[in-house]
Amino acid sequence: MKENAVYYNDYLQLQQLLNSQHPESFKEGNTPAHDEMLFIIIHQSYELWFKQILFEVNAAIDVLNQPSINDNTPALQTVVHRLNRVITILKVLVHQIDIMETMTPMDFLDFRDLLRPASGFQSWQFKTLEAKLGLPYNERYGKEYYTSQLKQPEIDIIKQAEEEKSLLYVVNKWLERMPYFENTAHWEEFVHQGESTPDLHPYWSTYRHCYSHSLAEAERNNLQAFNNIFIQGQTTGQLSAKASRAALFIMLYRGYPLLHLPFELINNLLEIDEQMSTWRYRHMNMVHRMIGTRIGTGGSSGKDYLRAALDKHYIFKEFAALTSFLIERSKLPALPNALINNLGFNI
Amino acid sequence: MKENAVYYNDYLQLQQLLNSQHPESFKEGNTPAHDEMLFIIIHQSYELWFKQILFEVNAAIDVLNQPSINDNTPALQTVVHRLNRVITILKVLVHQIDIMETMTPMDFLDFRDLLRPASGFQSWQFKTLEAKLGLPYNERYGKEYYTSQLKQPEIDIIKQAEEEKSLLYVVNKWLERMPYFENTAHWEEFVHQGESTPDLHPYWSTYRHCYSHSLAEAERNNLQAFNNIFIQGQTTGQLSAKASRAALFIMLYRGYPLLHLPFELINNLLEIDEQMSTWRYRHMNMVHRMIGTRIGTGGSSGKDYLRAALDKHYIFKEFAALTSFLIERSKLPALPNALINNLGFNI
Amino acid sequence: MKENAVYYNDYLQLQQLLNSQHPESFKEGNTPAHDEMLFIIIHQSYELWFKQILFEVNAAIDVLNQPSINDNTPALQTVVHRLNRVITILKVLVHQIDIMETMTPMDFLDFRDLLRPASGFQSWQFKTLEAKLGLPYNERYGKEYYTSQLKQPEIDIIKQAEEEKSLLYVVNKWLERMPYFENTAHWEEFVHQGESTPDLHPYWSTYRHCYSHSLAEAERNNLQAFNNIFIQGQTTGQLSAKASRAALFIMLYRGYPLLHLPFELINNLLEIDEQMSTWRYRHMNMVHRMIGTRIGTGGSSGKDYLRAALDKHYIFKEFAALTSFLIERSKLPALPNALINNLGFNI
Amino acid sequence: MKENAVYYNDYLQLQQLLNSQHPESFKEGNTPAHDEMLFIIIHQSYELWFKQILFEVNAAIDVLNQPSINDNTPALQTVVHRLNRVITILKVLVHQIDIMETMTPMDFLDFRDLLRPASGFQSWQFKTLEAKLGLPYNERYGKEYYTSQLKQPEIDIIKQAEEEKSLLYVVNKWLERMPYFENTAHWEEFVHQGESTPDLHPYWSTYRHCYSHSLAEAERNNLQAFNNIFIQGQTTGQLSAKASRAALFIMLYRGYPLLHLPFELINNLLEIDEQMSTWRYRHMNMVHRMIGTRIGTGGSSGKDYLRAALDKHYIFKEFAALTSFLIERSKLPALPNALINNLGFNI
Repeated sequence: MKENAVYYNDYLQLQQLLNSQHPESFKEGNTPAHDEMLFIIIHQSYELWFKQILFEVNAAIDVLNQPSINDNTPALQTVVHRLNRVITILKVLVHQIDIMETMTPMDFLDFRDLLRPASGFQSWQFKTLEAKLGLPYNERYGKEYYTSQLKQPEIDIIKQAEEEKSLLYVVNKWLERMPYFENTAHWEEFVHQGESTPDLHPYWSTYRHCYSHSLAEAERNNLQAFNNIFIQGQTTGQLSAKASRAALFIMLYRGYPLLHLPFELINNLLEIDEQMSTWRYRHMNMVHRMIGTRIGTGGSSGKDYLRAALDKHYIFKEFAALTSFLIERSKLPALPNALINNLGFNI
Repeated sequence: MKENAVYYNDYLQLQQLLNSQHPESFKEGNTPAHDEMLFIIIHQSYELWFKQILFEVNAAIDVLNQPSINDNTPALQTVVHRLNRVITILKVLVHQIDIMETMTPMDFLDFRDLLRPASGFQSWQFKTLEAKLGLPYNERYGKEYYTSQLKQPEIDIIKQAEEEKSLLYVVNKWLERMPYFENTAHWEEFVHQGESTPDLHPYWSTYRHCYSHSLAEAERNNLQAFNNIFIQGQTTGQLSAKASRAALFIMLYRGYPLLHLPFELINNLLEIDEQMSTWRYRHMNMVHRMIGTRIGTGGSSGKDYLRAALDKHYIFKEFAALTSFLIERSKLPALPNALINNLGFNI
Repeated sequence: MKENAVYYNDYLQLQQLLNSQHPESFKEGNTPAHDEMLFIIIHQSYELWFKQILFEVNAAIDVLNQPSINDNTPALQTVVHRLNRVITILKVLVHQIDIMETMTPMDFLDFRDLLRPASGFQSWQFKTLEAKLGLPYNERYGKEYYTSQLKQPEIDIIKQAEEEKSLLYVVNKWLERMPYFENTAHWEEFVHQGESTPDLHPYWSTYRHCYSHSLAEAERNNLQAFNNIFIQGQTTGQLSAKASRAALFIMLYRGYPLLHLPFELINNLLEIDEQMSTWRYRHMNMVHRMIGTRIGTGGSSGKDYLRAALDKHYIFKEFAALTSFLIERSKLPALPNALINNLGFNI
Repeated sequence: MKENAVYYNDYLQLQQLLNSQHPESFKEGNTPAHDEMLFIIIHQSYELWFKQILFEVNAAIDVLNQPSINDNTPALQTVVHRLNRVITILKVLVHQIDIMETMTPMDFLDFRDLLRPASGFQSWQFKTLEAKLGLPYNERYGKEYYTSQLKQPEIDIIKQAEEEKSLLYVVNKWLERMPYFENTAHWEEFVHQGESTPDLHPYWSTYRHCYSHSLAEAERNNLQAFNNIFIQGQTTGQLSAKASRAALFIMLYRGYPLLHLPFELINNLLEIDEQMSTWRYRHMNMVHRMIGTRIGTGGSSGKDYLRAALDKHYIFKEFAALTSFLIERSKLPALPNALINNLGFNI
């Protein structure tokens, strides 16, 4: 073959990649523990994929961070496509836990002590990913603890990510720019239902009316939560009322062609949370099965941290909460034709 | 074709099977909700598989319930094979949640009210399965509540199952029959380590010694739990100390050919719990995504019950707990040759 | 509970459903073969899901069969959503083969002879599904053979399906209605490249130019195939040249918001073919592993039929073939703004 | 933290690992193609896992290559465990194709030309793996072709692997050592059926009798194939008649405790072939979907090679073929008690 041609082995830097596994137990003076090789390679595989996920998430943020997205370009489809890939990767990462589970507790104990205090808890790429998705420092379980085992260069990377715009941040801003309710001409023929409220767009007093009638007796409490956001305009978490309204509107009328991509974007956020939560759940079970009440290499009982992170680290939970405010498809307020015909978000 | 030949359509009773879907919303006076068909068929598919799982679990119980299992027959392999199939089915049932997730909340709300108070909580086959596996009535979350929505014939079926021998019961009995420690001739050349304890088999005082040395400083508390079971002989849950000792011994020496099937049996129990727990977890998330804080057809907020059942309904948790008492493979006490050569459980 | 309330057990017709399993080997005079229960239940589960898939495919055909689909309604999104569900179900059906594989050849042989000549080959729902998707009679492997083992009522159902409009038929018609190239005003500012061809829309002579330049030396043959369809206007299989042009245009400009749903529709067809082919492949391997060179209950060596069907029964292969006519994203002819601003297919 | 402590980032060599991605299209003068990063990382992930699979396969070969395996040690269980892990990894590698499928043909074309002639066909680790499992040079599709695109150092690695003992080789030797038929005392009470054959162990003439009666009319040809191996003693492929007999015996009496691990070993070989074949199948479909009839970076139409390799590169096909020689479980010749009681292969 030609000497200057691209060669698989070099292109993928296999020389370097396949010489990056140096089990502690294989070093002189120790007893080789066969399974330490697996331990290294599975973690390396995770880190490679974390790099790819970060690459996709950053690309998605860059697109959404433009002052306005022109809906006459493929910009939004690109964002949805990037996040779809993230979800596909996360599903494989969940599956990959099956491989870790082929390591028995006794085989793990054979090299555990050699690794202290290194642990998966030191994966700065994973913490960076959480930050870039939108997990703020003050919602982390254990706050300072989460960087306590890292060295300064890795802490800096995470802190840097926390200061940059997150996916959640740019999605919120993008939702706020949605002009569904602004052009009064679009709404002239809208059929109002129920009581109107001063200073409130007629759509929302109508929808409150429909929502209220859709609630079963035992669900009446939901109305207060609804009012807080959609009538009073409260911010929930990192989601402004304006963004909440746009998001709920998108969820309700997702069937309209121009709302399909926006809906997929929101749905992808929920799917990312679900896959990350499934990963945390299976990881927690795997750790429990591996070490029981013994402690991991990081010096803590992994299960407790993982359980707490599982419950607390839902990043897009405000979007998930909007589900409670949906109603029957058959009871949806009809949109006026003028709006339907102009259902573009950037016209 | 011959008239008396078996015919696929009749053999599978497809006439009957494919005419068992009668959506409420399709009935006169209602508005047909397309997704109700899916709702029916997925539940029917679950119930078909629950029947198959019960068929396998009952077959496994029957084998183990024999006064003694002859290890010179394929009996134990049959049990392991049956439970392997149960696990394979459970994995598909977990995957099947993906199908349910294609139903959006708004499509569900379109027929939810027509179904009250029917709900998956009335699946008497699932509750029967929990009972046959070994979940006792008094460990159920919500106790009486769990049958409150059922009619008497279905309650009777569950109560009957609770009175019969469960898989956990017969496994405990089978473990108690294991004769590893009974033939003193087998143990004559065993090298004792550490302090011996009167009336305690030398293996266990030795293993306590090894276990104690294997514990990190932060794990010292584990020794008390170890002593309770393996030295003092306490029963934990439905697992007697004798059975716990046999089970831990099997887990420690699983590599020996005759201990391989017993180990697979124990491992299958853990895998069943893990798959059922994964199912509960994904089911809970799916319900949450479907109805949020609204209530299900059964009249309750499904998520709370499901969360509680998730945490509480681990059936084989005493086996899972044994993991905490394992040590490094390289530090295992060597078994005497006389025992190794006779490592049959029925000699 | 109230007597007239909907009750899970009745709603799902469990009485009937769970009493539809009557293994031949359990009948008097035969030796019960434990695994025949599994054999029945897995086939019943497949048939339940085939019913659901047919329900979804028929619903999708009904929408697309309307004289025109109004893009200002959720109609197209409904079609995409229905087909997405079909794909999700097919993935579970592929996974379900894992369950069948827990049946060993020896356990199958224990009841095989009792079932003759019944076989999965008699699944009239599956053949109906192939027909409704668009597999024409004259492209079936074995033609008459494929109904030779069925009784008249089931043959009638399949023949009826073959006469009705298939999904492929209505998609072809829907693509032909796409007005991308008809409004000359939209194309006034289009920058033509390469030689123009009389009576040919400037877009296609331009794209031929780009495509030709994109081909590597070894790919020059592709140009003839391209010319046949896009320049000469040949029909390929059941796909007219007009529909082929619309489909390729959609694949090329999928990023534009209004082309996103049409692209997803085409992509779903390919995904359905891929899942059905994966199912056939795994099914074939499973049969081979189960019976080797012995014959199945249907009297034939299942593997040969399955292999032939695998190669021949791709229903949407003309869409798959369009992939060969794509070019680099960066080399795409730019669309004129007038078109972009009106990229609706029903204006 | 302590300076000399093990640190996650260093232990996993993340500095090096995460700096091994240098997309050609990102280099000066080229237009960055976003998806090339994915292309690199997924191939790197595959190569990492190939390293791990080779590590496990080599470890399994080392154990089986011992002159005799003592069945009173965990040796065989270790082999089974290693191969189980290989299967689990292969399943994830199959799943990983989902990630590759998120790359569209147009995105691939954007950097394809920059990579020539590098291609996955140059994965020397994969070819080494095929060789170590047991694929001989002269059964490769395309023979010389398979190394034609490699440089000498990588060719040497593969050639070296072809000269070493493969998994198939050591399994064949291990099966030949099985002493089931050698101790005449074990067989004294065996009930012979059918005609006996001079110089043939009575078990095999009996089993031929049972097998012959188990065949349906259309299966009579199978008897010749049976006679060739089990009566005449022909070698098939790399499997000697002696090994074939031991393997079939293990498959028939797998339920006996001491035959369970040997059966699992054989079954794992079949499972490895099935997963590799599923990988090839999905990979082929993916390539077809990506490039259609255009050519890959390696200069060939990938699909043809992949299809041929799919059909030809079954490594353990002689084991798969044994399935054709099984009979109903209920018709199995009963083993004499003396044998059952001594069913150890190394006593």
